[in-house]
Amino acid sequence: MAPARGGPVPPWPLSGRETLADYRVFRVRRDRAVSPVTGDAHDFFVLEGADWVNVVALTGDGGMLFVRQYRHGTGSETLEIPGGCVDPGDASPLVAARRELREETGYVSDDWSPLGDVHPNPAILSNRCFTFLARGAVRAGEPAPDGNEDLRVDVIPRAEVDGLVRSGRITHALVLAALHLFALSASGSRSGE
Amino acid sequence: MAPARGGPVPPWPLSGRETLADYRVFRVRRDRAVSPVTGDAHDFFVLEGADWVNVVALTGDGGMLFVRQYRHGTGSETLEIPGGCVDPGDASPLVAARRELREETGYVSDDWSPLGDVHPNPAILSNRCFTFLARGAVRAGEPAPDGNEDLRVDVIPRAEVDGLVRSGRITHALVLAALHLFALSASGSRSGE
Repeated sequence: MAPARGGPVPPWPLSGRETLADYRVFRVRRDRAVSPVTGDAHDFFVLEGADWVNVVALTGDGGMLFVRQYRHGTGSETLEIPGGCVDPGDASPLVAARRELREETGYVSDDWSPLGDVHPNPAILSNRCFTFLARGAVRAGEPAPDGNEDLRVDVIPRAEVDGLVRSGRITHALVLAALHLFALSASGSRSGE
Repeated sequence: MAPARGGPVPPWPLSGRETLADYRVFRVRRDRAVSPVTGDAHDFFVLEGADWVNVVALTGDGGMLFVRQYRHGTGSETLEIPGGCVDPGDASPLVAARRELREETGYVSDDWSPLGDVHPNPAILSNRCFTFLARGAVRAGEPAPDGNEDLRVDVIPRAEVDGLVRSGRITHALVLAALHLFALSASGSRSGE
């Protein structure tokens, strides 16, 4: 009785698209799309914005870099890996990742590799988040955060990170997604060390 | 030279809050908040909406339940675990998770446990996503999706799931976060089986 794995889901043809508002960090658009099943049109609200990057940055002595900051969506302090937006001046997500690591933590690395990219929420967000691994990160100077950021840098032993997820101290879904990509990579698996 | 792990980050006092728009699935508000470092006020745009749930649902024969659907944010088919919004009529996130599993897949379970909850994006979203494990899921009937959904149900062997993440077939960040919580749980670890 279990359903078999079937063919592709048919796309929903667009019958309209309208930008409703621009809130600087994202724009809101309304798509009107036609159900391939019923033929009825439905409205879907979508947020458009820059792609994002985040970085699993490892120090030579077994640490992983984290930043703490006050987040206005939740009104609380979060513990996150470094990351941010791909700015118009960034030639690639990797360039953005290098810049964010340096700005947010003061650390640099010359050993970068991609861990994969995710859709932060394919239902309502059109963008992607590119995740990178930076090995052998070293402190090159003071962080240089934006005026609307107040960051603290924590270097946390890798062995403690799983516990911080389990205990609910790390709750940012994009950080958990990055840690999962890292865990599934050769570098993150026990056999890869 | 590595920064020590310091005290808490000070909160940013609010100097204003205004709801700007209501897009049904989320509202947009603007918070004006004062930097504790510089004393300057900055605007932050925040999306308010329902909490979300998702479900790692396991069948007795080693399968994990997935749904495929066309997602309007990305304009593409996604492979996701079952989930959705906590509706006003749901007495708790667990009630919502049971309902979504039944509606989206036709499966039910009588063995539920929480895997944790995450903030989908604490920078711009105020809500949480509650993740549950449902063991021994069995098919109780046909799925009953909403009119604005067209879903396919896949039962995928657990051993194949990591490969689908690595290959980029599963890209939804909240699904990766759920799989990470599951991997860190006793049920998800090799030693727990």
